[in-house]
Amino acid sequence: MSESDIQSVRALVFDVFGTVVDWRASIIREGELLAQAKGLVVDWAAFADGWRDGYKPAMDRVRKGTMPWTNIDGLHRLILDDLLVRFGIKGLAESEIAHLNRAWHRLLPWPDTVPGLNRLRCRYVISTLSNGNVALLVNMAKNAGLPWDCILSGELFGHYKPDPEVYEGAARLLGLAKNEVMMVAAHPSDLHAAKRAGLRTAYVHRPLEQGAGHSAELVAPGEFDVMATDFLDLAVKLRA
Amino acid sequence: MSESDIQSVRALVFDVFGTVVDWRASIIREGELLAQAKGLVVDWAAFADGWRDGYKPAMDRVRKGTMPWTNIDGLHRLILDDLLVRFGIKGLAESEIAHLNRAWHRLLPWPDTVPGLNRLRCRYVISTLSNGNVALLVNMAKNAGLPWDCILSGELFGHYKPDPEVYEGAARLLGLAKNEVMMVAAHPSDLHAAKRAGLRTAYVHRPLEQGAGHSAELVAPGEFDVMATDFLDLAVKLRA
Repeated sequence: MSESDIQSVRALVFDVFGTVVDWRASIIREGELLAQAKGLVVDWAAFADGWRDGYKPAMDRVRKGTMPWTNIDGLHRLILDDLLVRFGIKGLAESEIAHLNRAWHRLLPWPDTVPGLNRLRCRYVISTLSNGNVALLVNMAKNAGLPWDCILSGELFGHYKPDPEVYEGAARLLGLAKNEVMMVAAHPSDLHAAKRAGLRTAYVHRPLEQGAGHSAELVAPGEFDVMATDFLDLAVKLRA
Repeated sequence: MSESDIQSVRALVFDVFGTVVDWRASIIREGELLAQAKGLVVDWAAFADGWRDGYKPAMDRVRKGTMPWTNIDGLHRLILDDLLVRFGIKGLAESEIAHLNRAWHRLLPWPDTVPGLNRLRCRYVISTLSNGNVALLVNMAKNAGLPWDCILSGELFGHYKPDPEVYEGAARLLGLAKNEVMMVAAHPSDLHAAKRAGLRTAYVHRPLEQGAGHSAELVAPGEFDVMATDFLDLAVKLRA
């Protein structure tokens, strides 16, 4: 990306689950805390993966109109109710299940996330652009100290990524041309959709998102405007 | 307001123009800077008052459907174009007029605003709930160091305050019951509408909003849940 292209970028909008926060380790830890308190024995890594596996199909049902608009808290709860049966977890009060469902409001950042965002926000407007609902993103930011300038969510547009309405809506609400906005994500599919909608794109490598035994998707050089190893590297590459 | 009522409040949503920022002194100063640069002679206090006077009628045209949805940047520009003629201001380039219109993105806080918000955000989620558009509020926050957890605007709901959709929409997006959300404003009309929608209310006295020669509207004791002299007093009264 040329210096003049970098100069034209005004706002960075971030995918959150996996890109900003380590959902898998966070969910596992929440499970372990619950297990200790309640005397449960559960494979929490499998549980976390099962929860996340249910996420895309659930969103797709909303995107394709076979289910009315339901926010991520609602979709997470539908999946969770199934998982509790599947993993044989019994004896939780409704308040405990609700607390577990809100584990997604308490996800923790990658080690470079907060220092990287603090550098990036000196030069750019930084915002979420997540399928997570607004309340989830606000609570997560407060819990984890994420210094967002703005909370943008698919919920504001009644659409989930990768629907183009989400990317276009972000640029419109930020009062910017689409090519003044850069989508930052660890997931090529999100970035390809952002690119089709006219946004700039930055890929950040998160090799541990699926756990230590898995590798992240391969990305070709030049596939996106910027490729970074983490948010501090992104700050260097974007001259922040 | 009882201690248990205070305990039930989770989020504070703030009116911005007049409550958080001193629009009048800020616009006057922007005018004076422009006048100095361009050699203009203008009564900037009258100009600022004229700009603000055009605001409510313009929003009302949108609210009543005689004008399609137009955000505040757009309404400010319509009013500004009239004012430039009325005040005989000539010779500005389009980029200079656009910069002047964005003076509303650069409004400055009252002296107690930033320290008060920093205290309040330790205990509460704090958000804008303004008729200003999202981009305006984001740019203002970055310019003035306002530590919002969330940027909420009538723009997200396609309605302007005092339409109930704005207050109800804020509670919905924050994932809270309406009586867990408190509207903070210096304007009784805004608070009365918030109260009718089911929100808690806090009045903050801003006696200089209309300039030193004017007095703020009178408020009866008990008319709102909390009455405060400024944001630091509000923090004390809300145990933040």
